[in-house]
Amino acid sequence: MTKEELYQQIVEKNSYLCVGLDTDLKRIPKHLLSADDPIYEFNARIIDATHDLCVAYKPNIAFYEAQGSKGWQSLERTINAIPLTHFTIADAKRGDIGNTSSLYARAFFEKMEFDSVTVAPYMGEDSVKPFLEFEDKWVILLALTSNKGSDDFQQTLQGEINQPLYEKVMRTAQKWGNSDNLMFVVGATHPDKFKEIREIAPDNFLLVPGIGAQGGDLQAVSENGWNEHCGLLVNSSRGIIYAGNGEDFDKKARQAALKLQQQMEAFMEKKLG
Amino acid sequence: MTKEELYQQIVEKNSYLCVGLDTDLKRIPKHLLSADDPIYEFNARIIDATHDLCVAYKPNIAFYEAQGSKGWQSLERTINAIPLTHFTIADAKRGDIGNTSSLYARAFFEKMEFDSVTVAPYMGEDSVKPFLEFEDKWVILLALTSNKGSDDFQQTLQGEINQPLYEKVMRTAQKWGNSDNLMFVVGATHPDKFKEIREIAPDNFLLVPGIGAQGGDLQAVSENGWNEHCGLLVNSSRGIIYAGNGEDFDKKARQAALKLQQQMEAFMEKKLG
Repeated sequence: MTKEELYQQIVEKNSYLCVGLDTDLKRIPKHLLSADDPIYEFNARIIDATHDLCVAYKPNIAFYEAQGSKGWQSLERTINAIPLTHFTIADAKRGDIGNTSSLYARAFFEKMEFDSVTVAPYMGEDSVKPFLEFEDKWVILLALTSNKGSDDFQQTLQGEINQPLYEKVMRTAQKWGNSDNLMFVVGATHPDKFKEIREIAPDNFLLVPGIGAQGGDLQAVSENGWNEHCGLLVNSSRGIIYAGNGEDFDKKARQAALKLQQQMEAFMEKKLG
Repeated sequence: MTKEELYQQIVEKNSYLCVGLDTDLKRIPKHLLSADDPIYEFNARIIDATHDLCVAYKPNIAFYEAQGSKGWQSLERTINAIPLTHFTIADAKRGDIGNTSSLYARAFFEKMEFDSVTVAPYMGEDSVKPFLEFEDKWVILLALTSNKGSDDFQQTLQGEINQPLYEKVMRTAQKWGNSDNLMFVVGATHPDKFKEIREIAPDNFLLVPGIGAQGGDLQAVSENGWNEHCGLLVNSSRGIIYAGNGEDFDKKARQAALKLQQQMEAFMEKKLG
């Protein structure tokens, strides 16, 4: 999917919501457990209930891997159940030496047809570039993540210019890719950082986890992170998909997604008129 | 596997060799492609031909993921084919927020019974700790990797004390784990760094990729990295498993492994007498 196509979806739906499919057998409604593939059943119902309210879906690959090859099959079914209108994110946080990164890219872009994959920057250029070589596919590079551990290394000041590591990552990665194939992960738990980040990466989309269960604030993220092509994909996982756990879990998920979409719509009305 | 058990294997076999199972359908001998599960067939033959010469096997997870759920099945069969005497490394380079890292840990330590998994440090403490909570299991944390991109961020100097990032990673991670559950990845392509690294982490095992195809030198690594419990697992992947590609590929792999094992034996004789 191109940047223009993504922006068009955002404008049509008045939404920059991404629904995170962190689907855990221990948390899905009990009545689904008798299905052949409970994880897929759950995801299909969530997608059906939310697709008009969101522009992206983000399966978190760990949840599928934890079920072994069977979980990987659930993931393959899930990606095929997501409408082509939606931007798909393999939240895999991969990154390895060049020839190995190429294989991860093939796994997510060719074997499954994800639009994007999250990538960890620690191993540098040759670990990231193989993902950038696929047409109309995206790298979403970890910059400043939403978790507490983002203090440990990402915010350490570098050398003489006192630049935190995540800024160096963002500046360096922009030499490898551009705003048509490179996004950054910036956690909603750092709302004060979005203005600086927009100076470093004015045009790139940001994937923003951390609202809901992790405590980030949608309003602050929107105010500080919006750019002329929206530039934001705000993710909610647990807050939407586990909003209910009875037979009406999909209706509850829809209500939770709708609440976020309505806040986004109100914000977009202010911005776009 | 405990550190003592690993060291015992090293002494018994006169070897600190790890064989990397980077098994690629495009590179394995053609005659195997008609098998039900060519990747597993190849691995089983390699394991059979090399197990008395090495102490560890390291499947590189990307190679299995690139084949989707079928590849994941090949991986599950492979881990079951490795003798329990051998230390097993899931070279996965995972790392995510806490609840997600827990799931990756379950995938590799419980669903499959790997002894260890390689973990990327970028997301900090809560991304690493869930892996350290499993008894007799190991985190192998990326420190200074073997690839060219290791220059981009890992060697950037931090703050006032001019400490490169990988040193900060090693010092910080030792507050989270110890030499009984934490190893570091240090590439053989940085032989000059091993002495400093031994000052920072005197007791931890180092997983050393990068000899062979990537150009690292076994002798230099051994001289500079050896500690009182050996402290080294030196990996070779392509140099061993693709030493031949005819019907006798396993014999060729054995010869390549034997050559490294003999160099290790000679070095150990000097060290242990």
